[in-house]
Amino acid sequence: MEFKISREFLSEIEQLISENKSQELLLLLEDIHFADIAEIMEELDDYGAGYIFNTLDSEKTAEILLELDEEVREKILRNLSPKEIAEELDELSTDDAADIIAELPQHKKEQVISELEDVEHAKDIVDLLRYDEDSAGGLMGKELVKVNENWNVLTCVKEMRAQAENVSRVHSIYVVDDEDRLKGRLSLKDLLTTSTKTHISEVYIKKVDYVKVDTKDVEVARIMQKYDLEAIPVVDELGRLVGRITIDDIIDVIKEEADKDYQLAAGISQDVEADDSILELTKARLPWLVLALFGGFISVHVLGIFEPVMKFHPELFFFTPLIAAMAGNVGVQSSAIIVQGLANNTIIGPVVERLLKELSLSLLNGVILSIILLAGSYFLLGYEIHVGYTVSIALLSVIIMASLIGTFIPIILNKYGVDPALATGPFITTSNDILGILTYFTIAKIILGI
Amino acid sequence: MEFKISREFLSEIEQLISENKSQELLLLLEDIHFADIAEIMEELDDYGAGYIFNTLDSEKTAEILLELDEEVREKILRNLSPKEIAEELDELSTDDAADIIAELPQHKKEQVISELEDVEHAKDIVDLLRYDEDSAGGLMGKELVKVNENWNVLTCVKEMRAQAENVSRVHSIYVVDDEDRLKGRLSLKDLLTTSTKTHISEVYIKKVDYVKVDTKDVEVARIMQKYDLEAIPVVDELGRLVGRITIDDIIDVIKEEADKDYQLAAGISQDVEADDSILELTKARLPWLVLALFGGFISVHVLGIFEPVMKFHPELFFFTPLIAAMAGNVGVQSSAIIVQGLANNTIIGPVVERLLKELSLSLLNGVILSIILLAGSYFLLGYEIHVGYTVSIALLSVIIMASLIGTFIPIILNKYGVDPALATGPFITTSNDILGILTYFTIAKIILGI
Repeated sequence: MEFKISREFLSEIEQLISENKSQELLLLLEDIHFADIAEIMEELDDYGAGYIFNTLDSEKTAEILLELDEEVREKILRNLSPKEIAEELDELSTDDAADIIAELPQHKKEQVISELEDVEHAKDIVDLLRYDEDSAGGLMGKELVKVNENWNVLTCVKEMRAQAENVSRVHSIYVVDDEDRLKGRLSLKDLLTTSTKTHISEVYIKKVDYVKVDTKDVEVARIMQKYDLEAIPVVDELGRLVGRITIDDIIDVIKEEADKDYQLAAGISQDVEADDSILELTKARLPWLVLALFGGFISVHVLGIFEPVMKFHPELFFFTPLIAAMAGNVGVQSSAIIVQGLANNTIIGPVVERLLKELSLSLLNGVILSIILLAGSYFLLGYEIHVGYTVSIALLSVIIMASLIGTFIPIILNKYGVDPALATGPFITTSNDILGILTYFTIAKIILGI
Repeated sequence: MEFKISREFLSEIEQLISENKSQELLLLLEDIHFADIAEIMEELDDYGAGYIFNTLDSEKTAEILLELDEEVREKILRNLSPKEIAEELDELSTDDAADIIAELPQHKKEQVISELEDVEHAKDIVDLLRYDEDSAGGLMGKELVKVNENWNVLTCVKEMRAQAENVSRVHSIYVVDDEDRLKGRLSLKDLLTTSTKTHISEVYIKKVDYVKVDTKDVEVARIMQKYDLEAIPVVDELGRLVGRITIDDIIDVIKEEADKDYQLAAGISQDVEADDSILELTKARLPWLVLALFGGFISVHVLGIFEPVMKFHPELFFFTPLIAAMAGNVGVQSSAIIVQGLANNTIIGPVVERLLKELSLSLLNGVILSIILLAGSYFLLGYEIHVGYTVSIALLSVIIMASLIGTFIPIILNKYGVDPALATGPFITTSNDILGILTYFTIAKIILGI
């Protein structure tokens, strides 16, 4: 069951804060999940958010910190001393603590680390800070349960009890050799159902999926998703077990990647949200619009070249937005399917095959649409039949061109290591607008003999 | 580490199949994960896919069935007798087995169910088939570990060993009363670290998140994601524990939902992939294109109305694709941010506030873009300054209009229970094209006094 923030609840909280009734506030928030408290804080002003944060005890606030928007978190952290921040981080798992430290300004980073109470915890966090945040190393946590292949089940259970104190969820028990190299895994279930005297080396599973510290996060996500893993161990260059990644971190990666592709298709760069400031939203949106505007300049210029046509066939100019829009739509459709296929790794095989398939598809769609256009321009719009022929043949050519470009560009971008999602959205619509108009008038001139 | 399908590997397999060397094939596929074998089968022709399926033993084939594309799976199942299908399903968990049965034709469904060996398993599957596939009931599995609140830890561990036989991953231990009503949960860790004589009622956690059988799948996904849950229990109308949903099923929901929104933004309906047939791809793409084409008819008609303007200001017609494209781009940007916000439940507060924010944002963007357009039309394109003024002021108005429409429509759709993602893509670009052109010429006529 989920808690829903209501307007009434928010004003009740605002009321309590303005009257400085911290006890009543604590009571009100007592049974509310930290993820919900974070959402409440994001709805309040800075003072209100800070007030709630200072009122709650650190066990809850540490988790709240994690759930907050980066912007709100930064404001809260700015008002905390390094010692206070360290106290929050002591409550968190290593990967979460490292993520928060990474956001701090350089000088504060070191102060906070030096204030961490648990030395082992601090060492683990410092170790995690070395890795690129988009890599397996940047995603992994140090909390894991590992056993030596030479132990027996009894020692194993004993050791595990000690280790499990620091681990909130036991996913898998990893088996290592004396050099800490990953050898295999052991399921909790096996441990539950095996005699205590059995040697680990007899029962552990030697086949274990793993990733290296420098594997890209999206790659880790794909592997865990494909093989249905809830956790995956991470090894260093020497094959030594250095951490583990759990599925909840991967969900964030999957969600972010999907959101990013969606935003790029809609012409928004950076990961923005509706609640971000106008300046941030402008930074994410304006560059694409400027790009489209310059593309527009070219289309104005191209149309200007065909001005002489206007004298004899002004109606051709009425059809330009239609042709441009169709080119844009077809281009986005084609590229979106390829971008998604590339993201899911289902695009294999030679490019030529893809293009041939897209060619058949666009021929089929194009012919149907051209016939509708022919009928529509004659019956609906009342233009002469030779105008209908001209725009219909032009439409067919433009659709074929747009779909081939939409297929080709993302594949090429991907080949050269550029995010193919860049090709969707304003980029493809703008270039297809221009090429569409050029193709359209060229064909019209040929057909009409002007 | 992940296995990658290479062209060479595929042709090696094709070779072995054509030479009917099943033993060599088995050897080659021995260490390959079932998810990878499924991918290989999807690359082969029907005969090859069937050959591999028949060669492997049923422990592996059951999992492969799950991983296959629906289309390929259907072909494989068509060639199996009800008894053979039942044998595959006996290897699967209840939710996976139910998903596959749900895809079978009605008469085959009953035959397969009657052939299931394990009666309990069969009963659970039949039970699951009752639920809507987009609900918690449709997602859940029956495999779970539950204990009675009146037991002690020792009984508990004993009972759990028996239950765990059927459960591949133990996420949480659920505590129920004598009526099977969900009372709370117990972590494996607690069980590992508690004395065996302790009574369950003393140690279990009374606060437990749960969903009802009829909760929507996207809602379940949001709850599990927000509260960072790896499994969630499902209760019926009377609060009785009837199943559990695990995070791996939720990842599929998240992925599908994100893919769907992305595709709608790109003007593709239905969940299609690059590898689908041309007919399926056409079914997903053509309707949007036809919609856009009819929108295009309206824009042709609108431009026709303004034909008299052509005599004095032909250049206005050169700017129409630019204006239409900008209106489309701005509209998609605005709606995409709202659609994403609605999906993530971050859009709260009155609509008027949103519109005011969008108004400021579009004013800021619009003024910058209009100045660029003014400068560009004068310096780059060489048009007279009064032309520049006219198109710039029109652009500003069109941008404001487009962004307000882009914000308003998804919110309204959502309010009336329609998927707001429908509003992005061709729908918004087409309507903004038309309105943009209309606004543009109306303003131009006023300014130029024609």
